[in-house]
Amino acid sequence: MSKVIANMSMSLDGFIADPGDGIDQLFGWMGNGEVEVPTAVEWATFRMSPASAEYMRSAMAGVGALIAGRHLFDITQGWGGRHPLGVPVVVVTHEPPADWPHTETFTFVSGVEEAVRVASDLAGDKDVVVASAKIAQQVLDAGLLDAINVDQVPVLLGEGVRWFENLGKAPVHLSDPTVIEGNGVTHLAYEVRRG
Amino acid sequence: MSKVIANMSMSLDGFIADPGDGIDQLFGWMGNGEVEVPTAVEWATFRMSPASAEYMRSAMAGVGALIAGRHLFDITQGWGGRHPLGVPVVVVTHEPPADWPHTETFTFVSGVEEAVRVASDLAGDKDVVVASAKIAQQVLDAGLLDAINVDQVPVLLGEGVRWFENLGKAPVHLSDPTVIEGNGVTHLAYEVRRG
Repeated sequence: MSKVIANMSMSLDGFIADPGDGIDQLFGWMGNGEVEVPTAVEWATFRMSPASAEYMRSAMAGVGALIAGRHLFDITQGWGGRHPLGVPVVVVTHEPPADWPHTETFTFVSGVEEAVRVASDLAGDKDVVVASAKIAQQVLDAGLLDAINVDQVPVLLGEGVRWFENLGKAPVHLSDPTVIEGNGVTHLAYEVRRG
Repeated sequence: MSKVIANMSMSLDGFIADPGDGIDQLFGWMGNGEVEVPTAVEWATFRMSPASAEYMRSAMAGVGALIAGRHLFDITQGWGGRHPLGVPVVVVTHEPPADWPHTETFTFVSGVEEAVRVASDLAGDKDVVVASAKIAQQVLDAGLLDAINVDQVPVLLGEGVRWFENLGKAPVHLSDPTVIEGNGVTHLAYEVRRG
């Protein structure tokens, strides 16, 4: 069944970016291995450890749509019109860009509940991935998040952007994770326990 | 060789206690299993999953001394004079208690470097465990921490006391962890990379 999954690379102390939105410290595992993992775009090909490559290929094959916040959309310049996952992207924003040409694969909506509804329709039987920290928090608060997949990086950043900074409803109980041990990353996949 | 290890139960979002120093959400794994793990004191016996019990027994056997902060010493009332690990305790404080009777197993020192030196002497060939968040940060900043053992609990607390709140020197790079999967906990043991 289709699930809504939040996925981030996160430092052990909970940061998903440095204070300037930089991610150099957190994405080394995507390029430090010998197994090539192509994406849907030419400008992004991963080279990972065998364990991470298998994990990533399986995860990528399961994704049917992506939800992003406006900030992520802006700093990536909308991934140049095509996300590396090759799936439709739903962007949560109150002010859709007026001149964005890639309307066939990008949809702009004004709230997270609408985003989940639209993305789930687009994903069909596949999963929806939430790729922005604040949006993930809002989806979690709305009771619509099924799983949290952490690519946990063995570094303490000390400062930056936290994944779970402003949870509206805590504590949030999770399952024990399934664990995949990579190189420069530990993949921890949790289910959100509701109720 | 003797190591200095910081060890805490921590939520996925980085908290080691709730805002009132409560730890109910984080220590369930110590009592939710079928394997009894006795400690050095009658008032504390753990009941853990087989995996956690084996991990804990091995960890306990390796500990030769403990470093605690004054706050932890106070809220536990000095563990009644004997720590469950049954090892000497070094308390970092600028004002040692005047009437503390258990001077044979408790030492009071005024700084973390002295604490590490005294605890290492007491531990001999065994390891030193740092059991307070702020003290662990100071030991890390002083370049004296060898390892970080996280008992990672599958919950998001949203607020409380963070383990790594005020790192003086970041980023801190760690090894990939060794992983032990328990019930209600994932034991992640990292080595601190210096340099």
